[in-house]
Amino acid sequence: MKNKKTIVRISKYKNALKRFKMLGLSRVFSDNLAEAVGVSSIQVRKDFSLFGITGNKRGGYPIDALMEQLRSVLGKQDIKKVIIVGVGNMGAALIRYNGFERELINIVAGFDSDTAKLSPHAPIPILHIDKLENFVRDNAIKIGIIAVPDMAAQRIVDCMVGAGIKGILNFASIRLNAPEGCFINSVNLIPELESVIYFTKDEEKK
Amino acid sequence: MKNKKTIVRISKYKNALKRFKMLGLSRVFSDNLAEAVGVSSIQVRKDFSLFGITGNKRGGYPIDALMEQLRSVLGKQDIKKVIIVGVGNMGAALIRYNGFERELINIVAGFDSDTAKLSPHAPIPILHIDKLENFVRDNAIKIGIIAVPDMAAQRIVDCMVGAGIKGILNFASIRLNAPEGCFINSVNLIPELESVIYFTKDEEKK
Repeated sequence: MKNKKTIVRISKYKNALKRFKMLGLSRVFSDNLAEAVGVSSIQVRKDFSLFGITGNKRGGYPIDALMEQLRSVLGKQDIKKVIIVGVGNMGAALIRYNGFERELINIVAGFDSDTAKLSPHAPIPILHIDKLENFVRDNAIKIGIIAVPDMAAQRIVDCMVGAGIKGILNFASIRLNAPEGCFINSVNLIPELESVIYFTKDEEKK
Repeated sequence: MKNKKTIVRISKYKNALKRFKMLGLSRVFSDNLAEAVGVSSIQVRKDFSLFGITGNKRGGYPIDALMEQLRSVLGKQDIKKVIIVGVGNMGAALIRYNGFERELINIVAGFDSDTAKLSPHAPIPILHIDKLENFVRDNAIKIGIIAVPDMAAQRIVDCMVGAGIKGILNFASIRLNAPEGCFINSVNLIPELESVIYFTKDEEKK
């Protein structure tokens, strides 16, 4: 099944391949990828076969060709343009985060309602939220990141989707309703850290 | 089963309760929590019963008492002290992120190997990585966040664990080996954004 977890793994395989390549390797085996990503090698082969990707037992996978196939699965042949709404601490950090750029994901503009944060002539311009709709239309942007306070997040979803955004990565810590035809993926840092605290506490009890 | 997903949901229920409380409510039903978190109400009741928390069908749950019970499950009666290693864009943003503080999680220091980033007298001091071991010991820190480049991350894990850290939230985009007695939870932003791109692409095909 090509669900979100499968696609997250495909992305992780691709990122692991880049590291293998940096180490000077030209071929990998499903066992290598399994170890790098923390899954079984059966899982790796199952994920690949979903997308018609096959290796061979003796020779493994040539890294360059496999990377190309995974990029193609991920729809990453083209550079993807992404906007960010909310240029507070998290939004500003994401704009400067160079991990996305390495994956051909370009953050092309940020938006905020706080006029003190605007900087329309920066290399990645920070514009007033009122300009979002025209910017998204004019630049045919399909993907947006939400990094606004929780209570503003749903309103921003509706505004983004109205402008033509089809996919959203959400950092606000509330559940958002996705309008028809829009995919929302939420990353909620508080539960992630709280689960670390929980399992650390448990360790101490032993 | 009290696995990571259960604990992440418990944290989300607690955070949803805070919002219900802000709206002036004093009681909630499992249906309210189910909707706020995006799970079924059967799941909510199942999660609660794992920790001996029961409501009543007619009256639901009193918010204050339930919040206290969930905090207790999460081990959050005390303020939790956390350090961050790596004070680049992401690390610096996490230090300023006020969402953690609201949950009684205090980031007490940052560490970096780049001397240009140090600021030992700031309210949250940024110290040289060489000081990590003593700081963690002297302050009995158990939880750390990793926000260093991928290739440095495993070395930092070993260094943190050697100093006494038991739980790690990792933002580097590689899989880390957790030494015995250490719990590592990884948040990898690239696959999260790439899955949004994938499912948006899929939408366009329809």
